[in-house]
Amino acid sequence: MRSMICAALTLLALPVLADPLPSWNDTDTKERIIGFVDAVTDPAGDDFVPAADRIAVFDNDGTLWAEQPVYFQLIYAMDRLAQADPATLTTPALEAAAAGDMAGVMAEGEEGILQVIDATHAGMSVEAFQADVAEWLATSTHAQTDMAYTDMTYQPMVELLRYLRDEGFVTYIVSGGGVHFIRAFAEDAYGIPPRQVIGSQLESEYRVTDAGAEIVKSPGVVFIDDKEGKPIAIDRIIGARPILAGGNSAGDFAMLEWTTAGDGPRLGLLVHHTDGERAFAYDRDSHVGRLERGLDEGPGRGWVIVDMAQDWSRIWTAPPE
Amino acid sequence: MRSMICAALTLLALPVLADPLPSWNDTDTKERIIGFVDAVTDPAGDDFVPAADRIAVFDNDGTLWAEQPVYFQLIYAMDRLAQADPATLTTPALEAAAAGDMAGVMAEGEEGILQVIDATHAGMSVEAFQADVAEWLATSTHAQTDMAYTDMTYQPMVELLRYLRDEGFVTYIVSGGGVHFIRAFAEDAYGIPPRQVIGSQLESEYRVTDAGAEIVKSPGVVFIDDKEGKPIAIDRIIGARPILAGGNSAGDFAMLEWTTAGDGPRLGLLVHHTDGERAFAYDRDSHVGRLERGLDEGPGRGWVIVDMAQDWSRIWTAPPE
Repeated sequence: MRSMICAALTLLALPVLADPLPSWNDTDTKERIIGFVDAVTDPAGDDFVPAADRIAVFDNDGTLWAEQPVYFQLIYAMDRLAQADPATLTTPALEAAAAGDMAGVMAEGEEGILQVIDATHAGMSVEAFQADVAEWLATSTHAQTDMAYTDMTYQPMVELLRYLRDEGFVTYIVSGGGVHFIRAFAEDAYGIPPRQVIGSQLESEYRVTDAGAEIVKSPGVVFIDDKEGKPIAIDRIIGARPILAGGNSAGDFAMLEWTTAGDGPRLGLLVHHTDGERAFAYDRDSHVGRLERGLDEGPGRGWVIVDMAQDWSRIWTAPPE
Repeated sequence: MRSMICAALTLLALPVLADPLPSWNDTDTKERIIGFVDAVTDPAGDDFVPAADRIAVFDNDGTLWAEQPVYFQLIYAMDRLAQADPATLTTPALEAAAAGDMAGVMAEGEEGILQVIDATHAGMSVEAFQADVAEWLATSTHAQTDMAYTDMTYQPMVELLRYLRDEGFVTYIVSGGGVHFIRAFAEDAYGIPPRQVIGSQLESEYRVTDAGAEIVKSPGVVFIDDKEGKPIAIDRIIGARPILAGGNSAGDFAMLEWTTAGDGPRLGLLVHHTDGERAFAYDRDSHVGRLERGLDEGPGRGWVIVDMAQDWSRIWTAPPE
């Protein structure tokens, strides 16, 4: 057994020589990321950080996968409402969602979105909900790209996650999306297990029936993991300030601010959606993933702004055609 | 480096032959625990569980350390109130706490306890609070045993935690106590890092000042991690059903029930406080750590009931005199 492990270690040592970020162009951005990782992992350097403290947190929508024309979780909910009994469509938001009228849902504001989430996410056990999400992801495609949603994860970010883990980091998702929704695909898509996914939370209840004991999702939001909620959730759940935070929108500002305000070496990273040709271009005026203060203040704060068009040689994890 | 790791592996292989639970007497209890661990870690066996799913959760008060005459976190709060400005003692519960009158605090019910917690836990940054808890733990002793509180952790349980981790388990604390309080000592005391501590939560806020960005504890309870709250919190934070759960009181029943209701091999374990000589004896009639339904139904559910007097050759982690 030991000799097998030693042989495996020998093999593992080889890829270190290869480019850890092959889908990143050789720009300053890539150099800064690798420079940071080299610095915190060099035991002889001043910026060395013990592995136990190498915590990296990433937003999901717009940072690890696409979020246009709206969050994919909302598309899931609308798809499910389209199949629902019309008698259950009791509000304008629910009617609009069932009709695929995204603007109509948005017009009902946050309250309308919560109605759509409650109607499609509550009343199921967590297992049943996640099985349904997995089924939807396996059978649905994005209206504009015709790709599976899980093929619309960003290959360069998947490489970055893997590279960080290879260098001893623990990688977390800290997303405004629902924690159960993200867990349905995060391990396959990103190599991130359920216990390293932090997200928004609906109510839930513990129910014991003849069928057994289970957790059932209930209506009502317990926690919105966005803006100031992100550092608060990281403190509550991880209990430590990360040394690296990646995001793409106003909802991530506080998380990057808190992360990079810590002592010692820190890296803040913002994905800037500059690539309208291969993906979607948006920032200051977008209704999802709006990025304004981060663009204005990020460079002055030392944050790395990833220019998707310039910095990424490949966008999607979907195999290039 | 590789040869060093291989040498370390050689050394690590030796203790497997030694007794992994030296402070447990050779009783059925010990046999059942080791039998369970052997079964889930044997790749050739029917009950094998991959390491990624080997999640073990433990209550803290009364399970990993003592909880008499009251939860140590409450003693901390009372000690701090004894030093407080008398003008801040605005309720009967606060006055009683400052006077060291435990019965007086208890007489004010849950509301009184929350007043004591708010008054002593809120208004500080998480870092400042945890530094204060660490200072208290380092300088205070238990009125009856004259031991440091962190010496009143249970040696057999510390061995069990270590044994489980050696066998590929991830060990979590899931406690009704405050998450920040427990994190102040759990890594030193139990080898459990902050991100594997789940507990009750006060409100908190994200604050940016000239001094930096920090998380500040605020008055008001967000979540009580007790009874049905335990499986709910495990689902929200870990996102998986554990295969082993240990507790000692009514607050742990749902956690053991949910854990052992899962498919495949499961172990529920209840610490029964039978040892009035070396520690404290209590169960059905105790005001803290009341254990009734677990004693009645546990054996029929296949749970292991640990008889402290019979099963443990040593109680405290404090070195025997």
